[in-house]
Amino acid sequence: MTRIELAKKGIITDEVREVAREEDIEPERLSQYIAEGKAVITRNILRNIKPLGIGKELRTKINANIGTSRDKTDVNEELEKLEIAVRYGADTVMDLSTGGPIRQMRKAIIDNSQVSVGTVPIYEAAVRAIENYGSAVKMSVDDIFETIEKHASDGVDFITVHCGVTMKIVEMLKSGERVLPIVSRGGSILADWICYNGRENPLYEFFDRLLEIAKKYDLTLSLGDGLRPGCLLDATDRFQILELIEIGKLKEIAVNEGVQCIIEGPGHLPLNHVEVNIKLQKSICKEAPFYVLGPLVTDCGMGYDHIAAAIGGALAGFYGADFLCYVTPSEHIRLPDKEDVKEGVIASKIAAHVADLAKGYKRARKRDNRMAEARRNFDWGTQILLSFDPEKVRLMRAERPPVEDERVCSMCGEFCAIKISRKAVED
Amino acid sequence: MTRIELAKKGIITDEVREVAREEDIEPERLSQYIAEGKAVITRNILRNIKPLGIGKELRTKINANIGTSRDKTDVNEELEKLEIAVRYGADTVMDLSTGGPIRQMRKAIIDNSQVSVGTVPIYEAAVRAIENYGSAVKMSVDDIFETIEKHASDGVDFITVHCGVTMKIVEMLKSGERVLPIVSRGGSILADWICYNGRENPLYEFFDRLLEIAKKYDLTLSLGDGLRPGCLLDATDRFQILELIEIGKLKEIAVNEGVQCIIEGPGHLPLNHVEVNIKLQKSICKEAPFYVLGPLVTDCGMGYDHIAAAIGGALAGFYGADFLCYVTPSEHIRLPDKEDVKEGVIASKIAAHVADLAKGYKRARKRDNRMAEARRNFDWGTQILLSFDPEKVRLMRAERPPVEDERVCSMCGEFCAIKISRKAVED
Repeated sequence: MTRIELAKKGIITDEVREVAREEDIEPERLSQYIAEGKAVITRNILRNIKPLGIGKELRTKINANIGTSRDKTDVNEELEKLEIAVRYGADTVMDLSTGGPIRQMRKAIIDNSQVSVGTVPIYEAAVRAIENYGSAVKMSVDDIFETIEKHASDGVDFITVHCGVTMKIVEMLKSGERVLPIVSRGGSILADWICYNGRENPLYEFFDRLLEIAKKYDLTLSLGDGLRPGCLLDATDRFQILELIEIGKLKEIAVNEGVQCIIEGPGHLPLNHVEVNIKLQKSICKEAPFYVLGPLVTDCGMGYDHIAAAIGGALAGFYGADFLCYVTPSEHIRLPDKEDVKEGVIASKIAAHVADLAKGYKRARKRDNRMAEARRNFDWGTQILLSFDPEKVRLMRAERPPVEDERVCSMCGEFCAIKISRKAVED
Repeated sequence: MTRIELAKKGIITDEVREVAREEDIEPERLSQYIAEGKAVITRNILRNIKPLGIGKELRTKINANIGTSRDKTDVNEELEKLEIAVRYGADTVMDLSTGGPIRQMRKAIIDNSQVSVGTVPIYEAAVRAIENYGSAVKMSVDDIFETIEKHASDGVDFITVHCGVTMKIVEMLKSGERVLPIVSRGGSILADWICYNGRENPLYEFFDRLLEIAKKYDLTLSLGDGLRPGCLLDATDRFQILELIEIGKLKEIAVNEGVQCIIEGPGHLPLNHVEVNIKLQKSICKEAPFYVLGPLVTDCGMGYDHIAAAIGGALAGFYGADFLCYVTPSEHIRLPDKEDVKEGVIASKIAAHVADLAKGYKRARKRDNRMAEARRNFDWGTQILLSFDPEKVRLMRAERPPVEDERVCSMCGEFCAIKISRKAVED
């Protein structure tokens, strides 16, 4: 039986208890949310990692994308990125490799990862089709599902499947209304396949085959937003919302069949669209966990898109997004390097923490309360440990230390407001 | 006559026309807002710089703090920071020097700055009092106002004055309710003075003297928030709001006397407090321009507080904050270095731009629309120029270039979604 099936029967597994303890929630409550499709635990039955809960009333999670492209295929570098991502707090990683030894890369990441691993199998299916037939549009329906099965049997914990990129929506896209028709790699590969073959998206048409594989491994489906807006001009348009409606329907079918689902969301959105996007998803998809890609609240963030995404992600999380996909400074420019991964993870981690604070998540509040107390007490050791990058903070302070009084910092020196005001009002 | 007096008489000056043109607003409308205290133009009558508008219906502005502390007093480094701050888009700079040759520093910054310069004269008054009497609490009322007059006559365009740190509020602070009683340097200096001398805050008691000086130079008063919360536990508490109410009253008096005012705001706030803080200020202070310090939406951002501030600042700007004070990665750790200043300015600039996009500010939207169009057309030159740091973006792309096709980037390579989807739906 799958997690959902067990939860529906009221069976509280050790796994649910473990996640519930971690999240400070009643196991019965978490189990209920899993049964209703409002929370998921991402762990392939073949894997022996710590189970991760994502969804209603749980801490906001973050994902780091790693993996090669044909233009950059260094396996060791990607493993180093994995290590960095996890060190700075990534709750999951996705291997998005499209170049070099793809399967070897995936297996290495799964073997080396203590956190849940996600993939987008259509990438590998496309790469293999290019190798075998000269073009991605020539892949067969079986090629797609065999690749998905291979990912599941390799131990992948969750996969992105762009089931909502339907023939009808792709046809509508030809109206030319959008500035950027599709900015999702998987979405564009499927749209191209649909146009070339004049056939429905296999992930939509044969959704039952997908469910069959997912049930076998208790694989979580992340229903991808192939039609996410790629610029503010395309934000919250009919293509995006029609796809969301399709995805919402598929999610209902999946949950009824005992398969866990996450819903993926935008994308580029102006800040004033964030609230409505989250509320729309929660309503249409009946509170299914929401996994947002950013959102990026400006199109002009190149080089600093991790900051644009932190702004959008914090607000999205506050309104109810459950899972934030990190964005690195190299978004829109190049494949990220290790430093980009670190910057991206930390920015996303801050956004998730900010959202948890705003939602009143107790453990997040406790961390900030401890920081405030340490600041009050000039306890630098504790302050440094509570920061998101202790090594960086320690180094920064050492580079420009206070001269006379070790309690203060070189920003204010003798005019440290905390020192002066405590003396004034407490003495 | 001051700007407000002219505006009240319905006289539209060339200065107002210049700012109105820059902001794409009717000069009559801007003039009306100035008369009502809803917008200001920050320029000392002695200065010959481009006038800057801040307030209702104007682009969100950002400020960069520079200046020495006793623990770090390199004048040339501060001038380099000035150059960097302005290059990356600071609309104003504040010289917060408290160490070394303070007046020389201020004059050098004024001489070298094409943007409005702000200061906090109480810092210099405190430094001089320590030099002359051995302690800041021993400064006389005249010392304070003479220092303010000196700043104004040196050409400073706006000054922060912590008028709302009243004897009554300081007395209340002794209850020990706050984790961090005061985190404002100026606020703590004045609180200490009040406690030591058993007298009212001179900036409150003799507010008329302040107005006299301000009128002479058409100096803008930035009514400082000495009681801003320094941690989430202290956010939006009675001390903060009582000070805001005091400041709001003083602002009415100032505007009636023809003196322009800005209101300063928090500080550390959880994300869910941002909206209420902005709306409260706008209501209590009758839409006076609001200048927020961050806000920092977590206490744990050390090393990355520019990101915490960008999250808070973007949301604050969206809800109506007019002016964002940057925060650098070195906040809570040390005096910022040049790189910190650059990172802080860019993060704040992104936050202001995100707010302007969300508010529908036309010029901001135009920039993003051009970026989207450039992205659609694989026009890398234009994309780079429209970014916040073209040099960084150019370098990042050059470090990991695409291998086969110059149109794409090394993130997706041959699987560039824009390329694939445009082919699929447009051919």
